[in-house]
Amino acid sequence: MRDSFHDELDSITQTLVEMTMLVKQATQDATTALLTADLQLAEKVIAQDDRIDQIQHELDSRTMLLLATQQPVATDLRVLVTSLRMSADLERMGDMAHHISKLARMRYPATAVPSEASLTIEEMGRVAGLIIGKLAKIIENRNLDDAKQLAIDDDEMDKLHRKLIQSLISKDWPHGAESAIDLTLLGRYYERSADHAVSISRRIHFLVTGRYLQEKD
Amino acid sequence: MRDSFHDELDSITQTLVEMTMLVKQATQDATTALLTADLQLAEKVIAQDDRIDQIQHELDSRTMLLLATQQPVATDLRVLVTSLRMSADLERMGDMAHHISKLARMRYPATAVPSEASLTIEEMGRVAGLIIGKLAKIIENRNLDDAKQLAIDDDEMDKLHRKLIQSLISKDWPHGAESAIDLTLLGRYYERSADHAVSISRRIHFLVTGRYLQEKD
Repeated sequence: MRDSFHDELDSITQTLVEMTMLVKQATQDATTALLTADLQLAEKVIAQDDRIDQIQHELDSRTMLLLATQQPVATDLRVLVTSLRMSADLERMGDMAHHISKLARMRYPATAVPSEASLTIEEMGRVAGLIIGKLAKIIENRNLDDAKQLAIDDDEMDKLHRKLIQSLISKDWPHGAESAIDLTLLGRYYERSADHAVSISRRIHFLVTGRYLQEKD
Repeated sequence: MRDSFHDELDSITQTLVEMTMLVKQATQDATTALLTADLQLAEKVIAQDDRIDQIQHELDSRTMLLLATQQPVATDLRVLVTSLRMSADLERMGDMAHHISKLARMRYPATAVPSEASLTIEEMGRVAGLIIGKLAKIIENRNLDDAKQLAIDDDEMDKLHRKLIQSLISKDWPHGAESAIDLTLLGRYYERSADHAVSISRRIHFLVTGRYLQEKD
């Protein structure tokens, strides 16, 4: 039988999974808002970011309480310390969706993404959703093979990012510097979101094994 | 008299201060390398980033050990938890200097910064150095007024960032999209570095008071 401390540890993991699903939804909504110039949806993502921040603070308070009262060691301690880190990464991934939505709002009623780039951005949004969905499962199951796989999915994101930048510096880019700036930032937001996901998957490796994997920069 | 646990807590804080000074030097060197197309200095910053990552891992191991063996509560617990978070922010600030240096290296023997933007980038580098230098003092002294002041210094960084973007979207920008992309990313690296510094100063507020300040996104 499990004691209440371990029930609470499980519950913290469950909250991290829920937070991840919220971030996934925010990222997908932000992409839709961006590509379809949907102001209402952009506003929704922007408003919901506070909720994600709030979940992080609640999670951190619960984690601190367990650290203070339960003297955890070994895996239990790593679950708590890793939770503090994962919640920070997830909060930051929420910020990326927030930034994407703010750019969508800033350019409304136009769209920030000209047709030449919309397929690439759509793909970046799709891959981000895929990665974040897998991440939720990895946080839940702590499967190290799945965690490793995430770095490979991230290669796909990096490829799309390079493709985007390549299209901006091609001689045919007709949309001027402002649009190039928007797309440079958008590309970075998607890429960073995926990087944070990979970073979390490395923390899962640490949680399970107690050893660090080399960080990607 | 202090016990060995509190000596070790102090030593962790001291390592955070040293890590901050390394990040300051890296950021200043990266700016010099960028503005003067100094390949050797860029390579130095790139190589040294591993050292910063290594300090983070050592710090985290020491912090974990104290969490596991000392059952810290109240301020002591907050010092340790905050240390884990600050080391992650500092590591990321090191990455920003690393990114700036990699861009300097990529454009060598040219400079990534055309003369129109060089004063603004120089200022951003100067303000970053100032902020990170103050941050080292704040980590050491835990002065809440100084911690608050850092957000005001960060406003200066945001102003410079807006000025940089404004110059890129002005009709007179003659350097094309590739240069606009470079400067968009550079602007973001400096701005993010300063944001992480503000984020650390908020963690100091939490360390001292046990209460969270509203996060900037």
